[in-house]
Amino acid sequence: MYPKPIKNFIDNFSKLPGIGPRQAARLAFWILNDKKNIKEDLKKALEGLAGKVKSCDFCHFAIENGDNNKCAFCDNPVRDHKTICVVEKETDLATIEKAGVYKGLYHVLGGLFSALDTAIPKNLKIPELASRVESKMGADNEIEEIILALSPTHEGDLTARHLERLLKPFKVKITRLGRGLPYGSDVEFADAKTLSGALESRKELK
Amino acid sequence: MYPKPIKNFIDNFSKLPGIGPRQAARLAFWILNDKKNIKEDLKKALEGLAGKVKSCDFCHFAIENGDNNKCAFCDNPVRDHKTICVVEKETDLATIEKAGVYKGLYHVLGGLFSALDTAIPKNLKIPELASRVESKMGADNEIEEIILALSPTHEGDLTARHLERLLKPFKVKITRLGRGLPYGSDVEFADAKTLSGALESRKELK
Repeated sequence: MYPKPIKNFIDNFSKLPGIGPRQAARLAFWILNDKKNIKEDLKKALEGLAGKVKSCDFCHFAIENGDNNKCAFCDNPVRDHKTICVVEKETDLATIEKAGVYKGLYHVLGGLFSALDTAIPKNLKIPELASRVESKMGADNEIEEIILALSPTHEGDLTARHLERLLKPFKVKITRLGRGLPYGSDVEFADAKTLSGALESRKELK
Repeated sequence: MYPKPIKNFIDNFSKLPGIGPRQAARLAFWILNDKKNIKEDLKKALEGLAGKVKSCDFCHFAIENGDNNKCAFCDNPVRDHKTICVVEKETDLATIEKAGVYKGLYHVLGGLFSALDTAIPKNLKIPELASRVESKMGADNEIEEIILALSPTHEGDLTARHLERLLKPFKVKITRLGRGLPYGSDVEFADAKTLSGALESRKELK
C-alpha cells in the first residue's frame, strides 16, 4: 500500500532491534515531513559508525579510533583498578556508570550464553577476561573482586556460572548483583522468582 | 562517556519520534556489531525518501514520484467513490486499510488542531478537502458521506468540530468513528471518557 521508497525504508529500519514495521512507517513519514533535513544528519551519523569506533584493549568498551587503545575508565588512575565489573553490553555499562555508585573498572563481554545452545559462544570476551585477571596475579595491582553485573535471567545465570568456574582458580572474590524488588515496585505484582530473590537477600534492620 | 561517533549517532537518532537516547545507544551498538552491513541499507533507505515520494493530488496519501498523480485508492474504480474517510496521517490510513473493512476513498489531513493554539493550522489539507467535496456537488458521483476517522482525543475533537462546521453547507452526511471499549479490554480499567462513550453508543441486543 505504501509507495516503494517508503516500503524499502520500513523493510530496512524494522530490522533494527526494538523497531517494528509500524514505528518504521511513522519514522518514514516523520522524516519526510521534517523541514530541518534530518535525513542528512542521520546519514552522517550512520557513516560516523563506519571505521571510527574500536574497542578498548583492556575492557572492550567502545572508544573512538585514534592513537589511544585504552578507554577513559582503564586510563583513569583515580578509579579502583582492583575491581572489575563484568557487563553484557556497552549500554549496561552506561546505566551503571550513570548511577554514579561504582568507581572500579569494567569488562564488556559482548553478549551472554544462549539458553538454547549449550556451546560456549565464541564471540564473547571471556578468554580476554581470564587473561586480564591472570596477568595481574601476584602483581602489586592484583584484582581483588570481580562483580558479575549480568542480568538476572536464565542467560545471565548460565554465563555467570561459567565465569565463576573459569575464574575460581585465580582465587579472586567473585560477586553478583543482589536480587530483590526494584525500587518503586509493588509487592503485589512481584513474580515468584523476584520474591524468592528478595527473601534470600533480606537484610536485618538495626 | 561514549566515543564521539556514537554520541553523535545518539544525538541525531534520538530526535526521531519514539526513540529515546537509550534506544538510540542500543541501535548504535547493534549496527556496529552487525555483520551484514545494514549501515549501507539504512543510508540508502534514507536517500530513497529524498525527492522520490510525493502525495496524491486528491487524497494526499504518499505515492512514488512518477507520471501518475493519483494514488492506488483514488485510481481504483472498484472502490466506493461516494465515501471519503478523513484521517490524520498516512499510518492511520494504513491501519484502517489493513483492517479490510472499508472500501471507500481517503483524505489525509496531515495533522490535527492543537489543544494549545486556537489558530487553524495552515499545513492541514482542510481547504483541499472542502474543494474536493465542493467539486463533486451536483455531479453524478456526488459524495454521500464523510467519515471523520480522527483519534478520540481533545485534538481530534477540535479538528472534527471544525470540519463539521466547514462541511455542513455541502449537505453531505458527516459521521465520526464510534466510541466505546476496545476489543479485548477490561471494563475495570476503562477510564470515565471511554465508559461514557461506550454507554452513549450502546446497542440493543435482539
